[in-house]
Amino acid sequence: MTEILKGACIIGQSGGPTSVINASAYGVIRTALDCPEITAVYGAAHGIKGVLDDVLYDMGKEDPEELRLLLNTPSSALGSCRYKLKDSDEDDTDYKRILEIFKKYNVRYFFYNGGNDSMDTCNKISKYMQKVGYECRIMGVPKTIDNDLFGTDHCPGYASAAKFVATTCMEIYLDARVYDTGMVTIMEVMGRHAGWLTAAAHLAAAEGMGPDLIYLPERDFDMDQFLADVKRIYAENGKCIVAVSEGIHDKSGKLIAEYGAENAPVDAFGHKQLGGLAATLANIVKGQLNCKVRGIEFSLMQRCAAHIASQTDIMESYRAGRSAVEFAVNGVTDKMVAFERSYDEAGNYVCNIKLLDLTEVANTEKKVPLEWINEAGNGLTDDFLAYARPLIAGEPDRKVVDGLPRFAKLKKVRAEG
Amino acid sequence: MTEILKGACIIGQSGGPTSVINASAYGVIRTALDCPEITAVYGAAHGIKGVLDDVLYDMGKEDPEELRLLLNTPSSALGSCRYKLKDSDEDDTDYKRILEIFKKYNVRYFFYNGGNDSMDTCNKISKYMQKVGYECRIMGVPKTIDNDLFGTDHCPGYASAAKFVATTCMEIYLDARVYDTGMVTIMEVMGRHAGWLTAAAHLAAAEGMGPDLIYLPERDFDMDQFLADVKRIYAENGKCIVAVSEGIHDKSGKLIAEYGAENAPVDAFGHKQLGGLAATLANIVKGQLNCKVRGIEFSLMQRCAAHIASQTDIMESYRAGRSAVEFAVNGVTDKMVAFERSYDEAGNYVCNIKLLDLTEVANTEKKVPLEWINEAGNGLTDDFLAYARPLIAGEPDRKVVDGLPRFAKLKKVRAEG
Repeated sequence: MTEILKGACIIGQSGGPTSVINASAYGVIRTALDCPEITAVYGAAHGIKGVLDDVLYDMGKEDPEELRLLLNTPSSALGSCRYKLKDSDEDDTDYKRILEIFKKYNVRYFFYNGGNDSMDTCNKISKYMQKVGYECRIMGVPKTIDNDLFGTDHCPGYASAAKFVATTCMEIYLDARVYDTGMVTIMEVMGRHAGWLTAAAHLAAAEGMGPDLIYLPERDFDMDQFLADVKRIYAENGKCIVAVSEGIHDKSGKLIAEYGAENAPVDAFGHKQLGGLAATLANIVKGQLNCKVRGIEFSLMQRCAAHIASQTDIMESYRAGRSAVEFAVNGVTDKMVAFERSYDEAGNYVCNIKLLDLTEVANTEKKVPLEWINEAGNGLTDDFLAYARPLIAGEPDRKVVDGLPRFAKLKKVRAEG
Repeated sequence: MTEILKGACIIGQSGGPTSVINASAYGVIRTALDCPEITAVYGAAHGIKGVLDDVLYDMGKEDPEELRLLLNTPSSALGSCRYKLKDSDEDDTDYKRILEIFKKYNVRYFFYNGGNDSMDTCNKISKYMQKVGYECRIMGVPKTIDNDLFGTDHCPGYASAAKFVATTCMEIYLDARVYDTGMVTIMEVMGRHAGWLTAAAHLAAAEGMGPDLIYLPERDFDMDQFLADVKRIYAENGKCIVAVSEGIHDKSGKLIAEYGAENAPVDAFGHKQLGGLAATLANIVKGQLNCKVRGIEFSLMQRCAAHIASQTDIMESYRAGRSAVEFAVNGVTDKMVAFERSYDEAGNYVCNIKLLDLTEVANTEKKVPLEWINEAGNGLTDDFLAYARPLIAGEPDRKVVDGLPRFAKLKKVRAEG
């Protein structure tokens, strides 16, 4: 039988936000507030930095209805950070401070909501607490639009971003071919090392309303081949729509986004004025084809467009947070909550929760399988469709007032130690 | 009593598309198909060019359910154009050809769905048909995200784009302040001469989740004042969010988007590689403030994001199309359908249909009233909120299959004359 561990918990958010990271936070907060083992629920301001700075918010003081609105509020409501802890063997200053804060508030549960780096943070804190003999259960709750976390079928946050990308590709497809004049459209999607999110453009293509060409960072990008691809399709139908990952690079590893950099102008202060990848490629294509070329960057919209989130993603994200708390109060520690896919007898997608060792998941990346990329390296296979389709299903049940979203407004009352 | 005019009708779409231009087209097509006076309903491929090229589609051959999906399908389903007719006194070649096609198909009704230029086209055709004594009723159905048509309270298409802008501003607001490090975000919104769409960012600001600064082309843009505004707000809270119209210009009339042009690099083919306004301003701010600056262009998304359209806009757009047909079969010609606002006894917004002379509306622009812009020229007043709020209300009742929009797929069967 599991020993009952009584004490407070901290929830922190870290890394780039998503449309649904707050759904996971809500899963943790709501469940923790309802757990008799957990004596107080604190939200750390800007992730681990809030712990180091002793800026914790008392979640018990929030209006339950506002907390519930976190399910549909994008970005990290508690604030995020990109702070990387040193190895405790090298410098244990931060760890001592964390221990001090944990003791001050009698923190016995720590939930960290983030990507690769955040799982590394979790893992390091956990190892330190074990070393110094401070009993504390530490759980990672994954999030990333990049979908690149190791060992999980998919990551909370990916599907909503993918749905934005696929929906927007369909809408842009219709817009970009409205005139009977030639036009090339280049859409830039986030993803430095993994092309999962750009691959979502293929969901639109499969509806007959998406890009003709899709390039992921999993394959080396060949400029000559790209230009030949664009010219061929443009010659066929006077239009060409392309989706590219921001991280595409040539075989030497050089980012294509940097191809314009040599000639980039320098401003009065000596700063290079770099355009994005879409602008760089648009300029190169414009130089070769005598037609209108438009570069479009999906920018922050792709990770914060909660209004077009996947309800499947929202509920799974919530569940990941809730499960982390349930496992922890039942004795589990040092794990990240992960997803395993199965299909029921009727062939419907089912998402099951599993646990991964933090050590296993920290700092490793999962990329799009090369066999899901077509031979020419400019599109995806049906395997990707089968993978992604169930994830984006379901419309968000969100609160709208007079046409605008009603997002959560937290009071953020400082905790008293 | 009105003389009954029996014959076919043509519907054409022109200019930049919107999220709801097809809702107006559906209003025309559905109503015309149901009118006993109208013997056939033809859709012109790419507006007036489809008439000149004799490429007309028989709308009676479309599946009624697919036609109905036009209510939520963005962009111009029939195709658009930016073709400007010459004055018939100078060159009547096009007019003779239009008359020939009208006679070939016995066209007695012509509905044209577009902005300023399209109303000019309508007007010219109408005058010519009167001159040559060919009986034909000609009606304009307005659309424009720019909201700059003269004489109407607002234009179909504006509210949906405004809702996208306001919603996206709120989402970006949350995302752009998630880290505890400094950041300036500059969002570029469409609108060359009129700032209506950029003003929609104020709807987000009024919710406490929008830009700190908003600049419209109705006022001269002063770079020094802008930089002072940004620095002041950045110094206050470490973040600054700005919305700008693409058409902002200095007092000499020079576009701010061209400020980067002198130093812009030239590619191998001699083309200047221009970034957009957001990138230009971001680079200028980056040169002055030592912090992260992000330029975001709302690009085509703001005019095609049908998934976040205003239901009020959809229904008004539909009604504009329907009314055009109803008026025409009842004897009206040479008019554009327009909107007049009133409020009922409970203070609720009511949209009434009125008619404007085509001559009156063609080629004139309506701008944001200067008294709705604050004194500093970097924000809007509450008058704008009262104006815009009722327009963006209502969520679109759209068809979604497995998480993706189900847009209309027309067969486009060529008409037989």
